[in-house]
Amino acid sequence: MGLREAEVISVLQKIFTSTDPRIQVGIGDDAAVIATSPRSAVTSDMAVEGVHFNREWSSAFDIGRKITAANVADILAMGGRCEYLVAAVSLTGSEEMSWIENLARGMQHEATLAGAYIVGGDITRGAQIVISMTAVGSVDKPITRSGAHVGDAIYLSSLPGWSAAGLELLTREISVNSAAADMALSQFSAPTLDYATNFFAATAMVDLSDSLMVQGEQLASASGVALMLDPALFMQSPEFEALGNLATEISADVWQWILGGGEDHVLLATGHDLPGLRIGVVVADSGLPGSKILGVEMKKTPVSWSHFQ
Amino acid sequence: MGLREAEVISVLQKIFTSTDPRIQVGIGDDAAVIATSPRSAVTSDMAVEGVHFNREWSSAFDIGRKITAANVADILAMGGRCEYLVAAVSLTGSEEMSWIENLARGMQHEATLAGAYIVGGDITRGAQIVISMTAVGSVDKPITRSGAHVGDAIYLSSLPGWSAAGLELLTREISVNSAAADMALSQFSAPTLDYATNFFAATAMVDLSDSLMVQGEQLASASGVALMLDPALFMQSPEFEALGNLATEISADVWQWILGGGEDHVLLATGHDLPGLRIGVVVADSGLPGSKILGVEMKKTPVSWSHFQ
Repeated sequence: MGLREAEVISVLQKIFTSTDPRIQVGIGDDAAVIATSPRSAVTSDMAVEGVHFNREWSSAFDIGRKITAANVADILAMGGRCEYLVAAVSLTGSEEMSWIENLARGMQHEATLAGAYIVGGDITRGAQIVISMTAVGSVDKPITRSGAHVGDAIYLSSLPGWSAAGLELLTREISVNSAAADMALSQFSAPTLDYATNFFAATAMVDLSDSLMVQGEQLASASGVALMLDPALFMQSPEFEALGNLATEISADVWQWILGGGEDHVLLATGHDLPGLRIGVVVADSGLPGSKILGVEMKKTPVSWSHFQ
Repeated sequence: MGLREAEVISVLQKIFTSTDPRIQVGIGDDAAVIATSPRSAVTSDMAVEGVHFNREWSSAFDIGRKITAANVADILAMGGRCEYLVAAVSLTGSEEMSWIENLARGMQHEATLAGAYIVGGDITRGAQIVISMTAVGSVDKPITRSGAHVGDAIYLSSLPGWSAAGLELLTREISVNSAAADMALSQFSAPTLDYATNFFAATAMVDLSDSLMVQGEQLASASGVALMLDPALFMQSPEFEALGNLATEISADVWQWILGGGEDHVLLATGHDLPGLRIGVVVADSGLPGSKILGVEMKKTPVSWSHFQ
């Protein structure tokens, strides 16, 4: 028996219900009507089954959390606060109602952590599950990728690489019984954004959705500078030892995870006296090719979604 | 050779470029930063290849127009003005760059008609083409589905049914050499929204994405009323004769198209002295089942996307 759109919407409406007075019209009309700030940040992220998530590896709850976190991270990376989200989902029709409910609960869980509300969306059918979310947030002073200055320090909201470690455990089908392995798998399924790290004073900021190398280069290019990173500073992270031990245990390269792994949605920021993990300093760009990220080296090119085939 | 995401984004950035000062940060950063009204409408629509569009039947330009129009219509239906759009697209990787460009140009064309800007998005890969758009608009006074009163007149922004007529021509593989057939095929590929019809004084409004019967019943239910429609009023539309003749020519039912067809994105509104096509009057709801839409009858249930399988 097929699920009827009206029934699904009714269930989702209950999960996403809110009494916040800023939501004047919620789910169920042609559009949501919301109170917005004079300056808003808006971003969209799409996740495709088999490309960005896998039902065998992640629960519906974690899939919902992960796509929501990806959207929220993009708002945070502009120096904004995520306020509203809309979700458009294509379903094959063979999903259990409970799977759809848990997907929605995961979205709601992450939205609540971010202080945001899910106010609308669309459900349709398709050959595969595709989830597209759009986030709207308030911004006082936008922090772009282009504001880094020579002499700024470089910061991360937390140590990246956990998601890549989780992906490697899953793809190599390695079972490791340790807290670090559990952390890696958990971060792969749904990254824990660090909502406490306040980067509002940053001169430039970017969300590491692909990797530190990829997004670091984007920030450096946009700002016309280079980033001099110091491996010793990364190692001062309280998480470095656990991640390094996990890498050693499965003969993996911890720097590949940290520099080339994506999807942790850690924030990279430049500025002075910021919280988080200080990893280096902004220096002048020599203009030579491949010289935007200095002080570190990776054996392999970062795996990112840069190719369509 | 695969298309690189960076190249595609660079081309799209040129197509979507804008110098409007309300767009503080456009495409290319983590999120767009835009000037927003104190009250905004936000809506999302997803279109899946093979379900909502077909590359054999529609050009990339028309596919781009159609999904944009669907989003814009939802903002208009709240009594809003569409200001910004973001687009998330999954591509298989086998598309030509020219197809992607034309998709973007279609989006840009329709956005410009609506007075809106495309400010961001996401591109990813997937097994099929999926396009998800989100529209953000300004709203002074939201017009929901629930404000219709007994005694209000009922209006349409224009005669619906053209898109359904086009779909029937295509599915039955009938070739008709007439202006009406061309109009039907054109409206199926990309509906022409009537941006001139001013329904800001409506008491209730809805966008006919599924059909007049489906959305009319939604408006009636939300308002606790019934809609008494008058076929003779529909026939006063200057377009009725052409649509009726096309139906006769291919032995189709013109009322099935008008009442049961979807995707024209005509607006249905209630109120007094509104522009557009007056089609009936709001009456009290008898409470009997199937009595929300009176005065007209359809032989078949409207075909809508209400089932997932």
